[in-house]
Amino acid sequence: MNDILGDWKRSQYCGQLTAAEIGKEVCLMGWVQRRRDHGGLIFIDLRDREGIVQLALDPDRDPEAHKKADTVRSEFVLAVKGKVSPRPAGTVNPKMKTGEVEVEVSELRILNTAKTPPFMLDEYTEVAENLRLKYRYLDLRRPAIQNNLMLRHRVTRTVRRYLDGQGFLEIETPVLTKSTPEGARDYLVPSRVNPGTFYALPQSPQLFKQLLMVSGFDRYCQIVKCFRDEDLRADRQPEFTQIDCEMSFVDREDVIGIMQGMIAAVFKETLGIDVSLPMPRMTYAEAMARFGVDNPDLRFDLELVELSNLVKESGFKVFADVVKDGGIVKALNAKGCGSFSRKEIDDLTEFVKIYGAKGLAYVKVTEAGWQSPIAKFFNDKELEAMNRALKAEVGDLLLFVADSYRVANESLGRLRVNLGHKLGLAKKDEFRFVWITEFPLLEWDGEARRHVAVHHPFTAPLDEDVPLLDGDPGKVRAKAYDLVLNGSEIGGGSIRIHDQAVQSKMFDLLGIGAEEAREKFGFLLDALEFGAPPHGGIAFGLDRLVMILTGSDSIRDVIAFPKTQKATCLMSEAPGGVDEKQLRELSIRLAARPK
Amino acid sequence: MNDILGDWKRSQYCGQLTAAEIGKEVCLMGWVQRRRDHGGLIFIDLRDREGIVQLALDPDRDPEAHKKADTVRSEFVLAVKGKVSPRPAGTVNPKMKTGEVEVEVSELRILNTAKTPPFMLDEYTEVAENLRLKYRYLDLRRPAIQNNLMLRHRVTRTVRRYLDGQGFLEIETPVLTKSTPEGARDYLVPSRVNPGTFYALPQSPQLFKQLLMVSGFDRYCQIVKCFRDEDLRADRQPEFTQIDCEMSFVDREDVIGIMQGMIAAVFKETLGIDVSLPMPRMTYAEAMARFGVDNPDLRFDLELVELSNLVKESGFKVFADVVKDGGIVKALNAKGCGSFSRKEIDDLTEFVKIYGAKGLAYVKVTEAGWQSPIAKFFNDKELEAMNRALKAEVGDLLLFVADSYRVANESLGRLRVNLGHKLGLAKKDEFRFVWITEFPLLEWDGEARRHVAVHHPFTAPLDEDVPLLDGDPGKVRAKAYDLVLNGSEIGGGSIRIHDQAVQSKMFDLLGIGAEEAREKFGFLLDALEFGAPPHGGIAFGLDRLVMILTGSDSIRDVIAFPKTQKATCLMSEAPGGVDEKQLRELSIRLAARPK
Repeated sequence: MNDILGDWKRSQYCGQLTAAEIGKEVCLMGWVQRRRDHGGLIFIDLRDREGIVQLALDPDRDPEAHKKADTVRSEFVLAVKGKVSPRPAGTVNPKMKTGEVEVEVSELRILNTAKTPPFMLDEYTEVAENLRLKYRYLDLRRPAIQNNLMLRHRVTRTVRRYLDGQGFLEIETPVLTKSTPEGARDYLVPSRVNPGTFYALPQSPQLFKQLLMVSGFDRYCQIVKCFRDEDLRADRQPEFTQIDCEMSFVDREDVIGIMQGMIAAVFKETLGIDVSLPMPRMTYAEAMARFGVDNPDLRFDLELVELSNLVKESGFKVFADVVKDGGIVKALNAKGCGSFSRKEIDDLTEFVKIYGAKGLAYVKVTEAGWQSPIAKFFNDKELEAMNRALKAEVGDLLLFVADSYRVANESLGRLRVNLGHKLGLAKKDEFRFVWITEFPLLEWDGEARRHVAVHHPFTAPLDEDVPLLDGDPGKVRAKAYDLVLNGSEIGGGSIRIHDQAVQSKMFDLLGIGAEEAREKFGFLLDALEFGAPPHGGIAFGLDRLVMILTGSDSIRDVIAFPKTQKATCLMSEAPGGVDEKQLRELSIRLAARPK
Repeated sequence: MNDILGDWKRSQYCGQLTAAEIGKEVCLMGWVQRRRDHGGLIFIDLRDREGIVQLALDPDRDPEAHKKADTVRSEFVLAVKGKVSPRPAGTVNPKMKTGEVEVEVSELRILNTAKTPPFMLDEYTEVAENLRLKYRYLDLRRPAIQNNLMLRHRVTRTVRRYLDGQGFLEIETPVLTKSTPEGARDYLVPSRVNPGTFYALPQSPQLFKQLLMVSGFDRYCQIVKCFRDEDLRADRQPEFTQIDCEMSFVDREDVIGIMQGMIAAVFKETLGIDVSLPMPRMTYAEAMARFGVDNPDLRFDLELVELSNLVKESGFKVFADVVKDGGIVKALNAKGCGSFSRKEIDDLTEFVKIYGAKGLAYVKVTEAGWQSPIAKFFNDKELEAMNRALKAEVGDLLLFVADSYRVANESLGRLRVNLGHKLGLAKKDEFRFVWITEFPLLEWDGEARRHVAVHHPFTAPLDEDVPLLDGDPGKVRAKAYDLVLNGSEIGGGSIRIHDQAVQSKMFDLLGIGAEEAREKFGFLLDALEFGAPPHGGIAFGLDRLVMILTGSDSIRDVIAFPKTQKATCLMSEAPGGVDEKQLRELSIRLAARPK
């Protein structure tokens, strides 16, 4: 039988004891990290969420406590009373917060025993993730992951305080909503009371937050779970958390101004870092030109350079033809990578093929000039122009893609990031923010032969581009903005359309008929007719943000009970089978499994 | 075409203008509450979430703004610039926060027009709830409901700050969890990736928060959506919000101490009321004896009195037989209600029948003694003893129920509350708290012929009652506690079992075999074996709490987008039909509708 806690009250956390407490009587509670027998003396490292403290049990001081201590094992749960003492000379541990002291235990209670954990709970042992997730409650004892979740708490605390100070109201929107056949796949919830109908879990509170603006709440925020039934990539979860905001009577600058202040507050509070404000801006067009992507990692250069004009008249038909057919030729200078092996360059070629590039031309810049299969196709003037454009120097490696605008940019843009990491240029403790603005409002869907919204159909065009909606809609820029940190989009939003005339025009361009619009967005369209204010907002991915702040490699390391990439929980074994009766009540049946 | 907002920035909220701003240039934005033409002058009441301010438009001052103002209608969205002026003598409105001032408008922009709303948005007009819910975005413009949601924001803000100050970490638990065939009906979510299996939406994060204690997070909180697929009563919603807390290394007093501090902080912040601490306590046994229910409304007396001993030997066979058969006779004195009509008393009789009572005996206490069909069955000594027990005075109405312990208590207890409201004794602005403690751990399920847990199978027994588990389990009291406010349970929780030996005994008593326990609670039982600390917690119903704080009659008035009692959203028309393709992807089919 375990000892009972009785009327003992903890005086402080184990991890908080310092030399300032020497001489004080304390009462501590926690888990046994380690027990060591040193002749007669027993030392126990006692752990709680704040850290570890050393207990000393002397058979002369309290034989009973010492005898009990002899039975404790790793992960037993203890409560002790004792006096804080300086550690004997030579045994001070400067690596521990509590390393100057130990507790001379006078009374010990064993509150619970523990089986031997299936893996070591220290910070050094690498454990297979499946095992960690199955015993998540043990994995969560590891200080690294506890610290992640404690930091996550401080992030949301800071966000809420900041937004409250800015007049935002946190308002809950429904989890049981209606399925809209747009965007990603919905999770569905069968309704028992209304047989044959389904709720959908929200992919975002977008419509509801816009309605709250129509209602006059003026500033809304919510830290809210959202859901997407997608095939999961490494950094996706079926349920994820957004910091969701919306404001009325604002334009782009207002949203950006308030939100960059929020992110700066988060960095100050969690990492003690002063983010310099305002954060840099870059138009979408510039980001694509210089980095090939709309989420540039600004921690390193390796910028892309377009060479289309320099090569379109050249003797290298491969390049020239691409340009003539409407494509582009871009290149980047991998500084100092002229020593890359054939194997390394082959790997880069395989990499760009993932993004649809047909090949990767390369040039090693040597004392003797270009060393490359393609060197011979260019005349000296062309070579010199390209060298100048790429700031090529001896020892560099130049990498070229000639392809459609999309493929050339994406493949080289991704290659750039890949190289940045490979070369160690992407430092984990450097934080480079940039707001990307002036996204295109629409893009042409060649297959559907119509425009589709780049963000969503409620994104407002730039005021000065509204006239283009009639003549040249592909040129219209949106009042949309993304916040990019170290190459990750951590937030994105837009000013919304509040004007029915503009909204109708938008639906026309998207080929959405009046009836379809009504079916999909009926209540929002109704709402716009009853006096919608100018409004806009943004949503930040909390999981991603915390992942970056904690330097975690996996999103699963910043979520208490994450799902696997198969969307299962290895601990609770969710999803699971259910009773026939439950299905009957919901008026659904299982479809026959495909053979 | 509407005017654009351009670079205008709001200087303050409409509702915040006071005489202190007189002479200042301001820029305001909001909705037209009302427009009045006074000869040449036009007055507009402009509304935002903080209140209403009067705009004055003079054709001489700015003919253009005045001309525009002529076109505005109710609920148009305006932005104005102008100077704050004192209202002319005699036109000051002391009922309005802004009643001393008006804004002399110099520039006006019409940001949006509005159709005529389907109902009046003032505080005076009663509107059918179905219409309000269909146009919820308009209903939410009404100041009363805006204030409810603004107060709700302040409640959660206060709760989070208080708990953060007490070392609680807010940690998110999953929404996609596993169905457990205990308790209420789960909402299910079919898994696409794992055909034939389902997630369940959580009825509470109970298991997860206990696991977080096993993990050593020490203090957890979360303001979290929970879900129950029940047939809805007036004050239930399919999704509801809990303030959910759990603590390690604590006993009952620690939880109660911290949580009553939290509730007091909420009352201070939202209503400015100082709740006196500690809050009163009452055992379950006392609550049942005096009030017949475990959620007594202490704003009024009308206490129940047990008369079983006084009547068991009497000549009134109906009462005497009930007591002999193991039932009880209880009564309450409806002070001063001797003048109730026959109809009123019949209504009370119908009322107790709802709770299973076979009848309600009544006595009017007159100068001439008991006026009642049952008076003749009692001798003078018995009458006197009952009068004394009930403190009966001339003019009182005595009401008796003779029935089983359960029925007598529940029917009279409910009748007591009903009378308290009918007699105006339950004042909305009086707040009477009481902690109910020492609930029974188990109750006997006559049908299943076994004990069932009164709370849940993880609730710990009182330390001193543990020995009774073997001999007399029905007598064992639980370390459970409810916080009751004005007759509503606003929170409830318990210290949990952390000791495997006790947990096993508990499952034995509940007739849950080892295999069944493993199937239902497998991972929690596993976790208990790896060093679970003593722990306990509580959950408060946020919706109910805000309902009481705002004096709302309906839970739907404190939720932005509530569901109807049929669990539908009249605005978004959720739940709705879905594509055949969606069902196919989820490997489910609709069952044939029952004819």
